[in-house]
Amino acid sequence: MVNMSQHMERDYGLEKDDKISNSVIRRLPVYLRHVQTLRAAGIQTISSQQMGVQLDMNPAQIRKDFAYFGEFGRKGVGYDIEYLEHMLLQILHLDRQIGVALVGAGHLGIALSNYARFQSERITIMALFDNDPVKIGTHIGDLIVQDMKFLREQCHDRNIEMGIIAVPAAVAQDVCDRLVEGQVRVILNFAPTNLRVPKHVILRTTDFTTELQALAYYIAR
Amino acid sequence: MVNMSQHMERDYGLEKDDKISNSVIRRLPVYLRHVQTLRAAGIQTISSQQMGVQLDMNPAQIRKDFAYFGEFGRKGVGYDIEYLEHMLLQILHLDRQIGVALVGAGHLGIALSNYARFQSERITIMALFDNDPVKIGTHIGDLIVQDMKFLREQCHDRNIEMGIIAVPAAVAQDVCDRLVEGQVRVILNFAPTNLRVPKHVILRTTDFTTELQALAYYIAR
Repeated sequence: MVNMSQHMERDYGLEKDDKISNSVIRRLPVYLRHVQTLRAAGIQTISSQQMGVQLDMNPAQIRKDFAYFGEFGRKGVGYDIEYLEHMLLQILHLDRQIGVALVGAGHLGIALSNYARFQSERITIMALFDNDPVKIGTHIGDLIVQDMKFLREQCHDRNIEMGIIAVPAAVAQDVCDRLVEGQVRVILNFAPTNLRVPKHVILRTTDFTTELQALAYYIAR
Repeated sequence: MVNMSQHMERDYGLEKDDKISNSVIRRLPVYLRHVQTLRAAGIQTISSQQMGVQLDMNPAQIRKDFAYFGEFGRKGVGYDIEYLEHMLLQILHLDRQIGVALVGAGHLGIALSNYARFQSERITIMALFDNDPVKIGTHIGDLIVQDMKFLREQCHDRNIEMGIIAVPAAVAQDVCDRLVEGQVRVILNFAPTNLRVPKHVILRTTDFTTELQALAYYIAR
């Protein structure tokens, strides 16, 4: 029997062993994107009040979130945009490249690979795998679809730290095991199934059906 | 200035005006899926202890979650699987069909439409839209891609209650506005942008980049 915090770590909260809650962590990329938009617009400083209005959030919440990581702002001046971006990138470990292995070259895999190419900050899909002989060897964007049998060694040899599972549920655990053997640290799973990982690996399952079903609750409100 | 609870409603928590937190609601589909698996296996009753082990969760959490909605179990007997499924479907409003309009017939839209066809419980994608003349009129599964200009009237006339946005960020607000005008109640947005909706509409944004960036935080742990 494991306790709820472990379950939360796997599927909902990832809060185990961390003083800073996952809700805080999940807001950091939102701040990051906003700060980058401001910097691109030539803005140099911002107060938590202004940021609160722009992001539709409580300024006290923003100040509290930043305070977990140190003193970023100055009274009466606010936050220096460039410094704030620097700090957010550092906290999220986005101050260096993070390699991702994407498994599954179906419509979802292709959508994720297109999406990531244009949107993501320092997180790079370095390798794409599938077990379909028709797909293996084809190009998707800059990537060539590789045979799943190379998954483990590619992750290991190229120091890939993140895995994305975009395969049918029936083969997801096998893919997950290979990613773990390839020393991947963090896995984002899109297959609608519960996967098992060792304790040192962080797994998050994003389940489209569960998302829709939970939203259905709010329909009759 | 709006408060954090409103922001949470839009992007993270949907907790505004609800006594039952969104974390509870998001666990209900997980219970539902498990209960359906058990029923298919011919199992008739289950205790919260057993369910806790099977789902890797704390049994007290499970009992507490169910208790929000009434007395489902009996001391020493546990939960009747069939009754539990019935109640979960009712709570989630999945005891009737819910119509969905999916906007965007790119790779993501196709992936979502395939996924939903096989996985989803009483949530049916009834209409699929795109603005690309090449895609309009083509078949994707059982659906014909329709011109975006019919989005509003189709939602309204066919009593579609849910909308899914799978279009590029630049056109997402326009799509969102049309869904709202079509009287959709709940919107799931996959475009990486902040959308505005009136207060009576529930919006949840699922942002792949934000998800990956938040996970990067855990890499160096």
